[in-house]
Amino acid sequence: MPIDYKRELESAAKTMILIHDPKTLIKMIVRMIVQKVKVRHAAILLYHKEKNAYVLTVSRGKTGLKIPAGFARMDEDNPLIKFFKLRKDKEIFDDGVVVYGEAKRCLKKNITSQSKQLLKGVIYQMEIFDAVVCIPSYFQDDLLGILLLGKKISGRNFAQDELDFFVALASDVSMAITNAQLFIELQEELDKKHRLFIHTTVALAAAIDAKDHYTHGHTARVTALSLEIAQKLMSKNKRRFDSKFLENLHIAGLLHDIGKIGIPESILNKQAPLTPEERKKIEEHPLIGITILQPIKELEESIKGVKYHHERYDGSGYPEGIKGDKIPLIAAIIAGADTYDAMITDRPYRKALTKEAAVAEIKRVSGKQLAPPIVEAIVGLYQEGKL
Amino acid sequence: MPIDYKRELESAAKTMILIHDPKTLIKMIVRMIVQKVKVRHAAILLYHKEKNAYVLTVSRGKTGLKIPAGFARMDEDNPLIKFFKLRKDKEIFDDGVVVYGEAKRCLKKNITSQSKQLLKGVIYQMEIFDAVVCIPSYFQDDLLGILLLGKKISGRNFAQDELDFFVALASDVSMAITNAQLFIELQEELDKKHRLFIHTTVALAAAIDAKDHYTHGHTARVTALSLEIAQKLMSKNKRRFDSKFLENLHIAGLLHDIGKIGIPESILNKQAPLTPEERKKIEEHPLIGITILQPIKELEESIKGVKYHHERYDGSGYPEGIKGDKIPLIAAIIAGADTYDAMITDRPYRKALTKEAAVAEIKRVSGKQLAPPIVEAIVGLYQEGKL
Repeated sequence: MPIDYKRELESAAKTMILIHDPKTLIKMIVRMIVQKVKVRHAAILLYHKEKNAYVLTVSRGKTGLKIPAGFARMDEDNPLIKFFKLRKDKEIFDDGVVVYGEAKRCLKKNITSQSKQLLKGVIYQMEIFDAVVCIPSYFQDDLLGILLLGKKISGRNFAQDELDFFVALASDVSMAITNAQLFIELQEELDKKHRLFIHTTVALAAAIDAKDHYTHGHTARVTALSLEIAQKLMSKNKRRFDSKFLENLHIAGLLHDIGKIGIPESILNKQAPLTPEERKKIEEHPLIGITILQPIKELEESIKGVKYHHERYDGSGYPEGIKGDKIPLIAAIIAGADTYDAMITDRPYRKALTKEAAVAEIKRVSGKQLAPPIVEAIVGLYQEGKL
Repeated sequence: MPIDYKRELESAAKTMILIHDPKTLIKMIVRMIVQKVKVRHAAILLYHKEKNAYVLTVSRGKTGLKIPAGFARMDEDNPLIKFFKLRKDKEIFDDGVVVYGEAKRCLKKNITSQSKQLLKGVIYQMEIFDAVVCIPSYFQDDLLGILLLGKKISGRNFAQDELDFFVALASDVSMAITNAQLFIELQEELDKKHRLFIHTTVALAAAIDAKDHYTHGHTARVTALSLEIAQKLMSKNKRRFDSKFLENLHIAGLLHDIGKIGIPESILNKQAPLTPEERKKIEEHPLIGITILQPIKELEESIKGVKYHHERYDGSGYPEGIKGDKIPLIAAIIAGADTYDAMITDRPYRKALTKEAAVAEIKRVSGKQLAPPIVEAIVGLYQEGKL
């Protein structure tokens, strides 16, 4: 047997383990077999749990075989599946591989009529797929799939050591697929947990938000606008924020006003102008937010957004009065979104501004209240009709 | 070469991929090699990222070799590591395997003095470990580990096909370890996300809790007691709750009073007795909680605990007045914990009860307010001094 393709497929089998998408994996294997082993076509039937059926992946190309309609998916009643599931093969072919010619000869042997019946079904299936060899792939005792090989382009028969090699390869494939499925399950669990975290935070933040009658939906809008501003900064300045930054910004947006839970309702919902003491009380909300969130180590970066979202570019903000680039970007972004949203919503002491008027005001406070790049981003979003 | 151990190790290599703890994996391989190959001992040096060093795992047993102090860990300067990292072996031994006898002979050959120096170091290391063969294990281009084999118990030398087989095995091991590391990383990410979710929920729930001046720390105590009650039910009735149930109970405990965010502070913190209207308003909190949490599909089970934690066993509770086994277990558990905690804390209209008095009262309401098994569990916890 030519050692070169054996080596190549073996090393490919090692790489397989790092591919965690079974579909890609199967396509890759089918393509490789056709190219390296120089068979006219190859196909793999792979078990899909959710469909409770074996689904076909076929090599493409000029010599690729056509799949008859209805054969792209096989259930457990298909003779091919039944045969390998029953492991009747052990009785007929001791290495588990079915070779077309041998199977034909086997029909003439002294086997039970039931076995004969099943074998005839297998032979018929092989004829449909124009396959000369079938190799089952098990993981532990489960039939995970079947590899079907067409004739060699050279016209020669497969040698025994080639068949042995395919059995080993099929076993590697089953291992890689089982592994991939475990990865997918774990990844799905992670995605689910992420959704649970975000959704719960959204719900609780919105509930706290609702205590302040004047800012209904404020948290959701500020979060969405903050993420838009970050996208805009990326496209404008070609700076890249990694997914971690965007996730932190998302969380910081949701939690930026969480400290309002510590402000009496009587102040939050006061119709008349606030006294200086009441204003002072309200200005405590970033630090109350910090007190609530500080114990959560994983929120370290998001917390900066909560703490500093009322700082101003010229240093006239609170709680620390830091200025310019000393204000963390995550907080500067939220400050921009927060300021714009406050302008376009009704407040006890004034009506909402129009978008136009709000954007004009945002421009006016550039370099004073807000950082110029943030203002530019908001103006850009406005011009694109995204506000 | 005796085919039996080769087969067994090959099939073991397939199973390896499902073991996601590198330590267990390495121990298993070392043990298997010693048993199957019948060598006097075997050892594996495995790269540890966090330590930036190669750490030794050695076979145990009567014939196990003793590790000199300071050799359980090797850094990149160790000749053995250096040798295989530089892949100098390619120059000296073309298959990457170092055999002690050959290495000694090699010293006499015409190699550079630098190579000779390094080779001497390797030979010295092999002598320390009483190893006759060293097999490197690479993943892509990284040296992941080194397999060290002692003499065969039979006293015979290793044959070439045995060495070839060990090279293949080492490659399988490297694949399994790389895979295991990917799994661990994903699992750690999942754990981190879970902690983030729980911690954030704890923090927000505690903040909402704090709005009600009379129930400081109530949420945390009810959550902890609910989990204790569940544990008690498990040990008493030999019923098993799966980890999912306990997780849902944990979340439900944290969120059970979340609806209080919708109750005016003036009612929550009223010093005087509540009017019937005010009482009615307070009794809305389970349904307000549901309004907040309903959109979160992942919380489906936990939500039952939030919704029904004020139902009573005899049907006299709210919001629906369901009774007995119609009350979901998750809610019945929280009801027990909630009732007990209310009794042992000061309220505007009465002082806290002692633990004794509270447990007596809990017993008195068994079958009326609370489900008997829950009461039994609380009494059991009290008797064990766990309340």
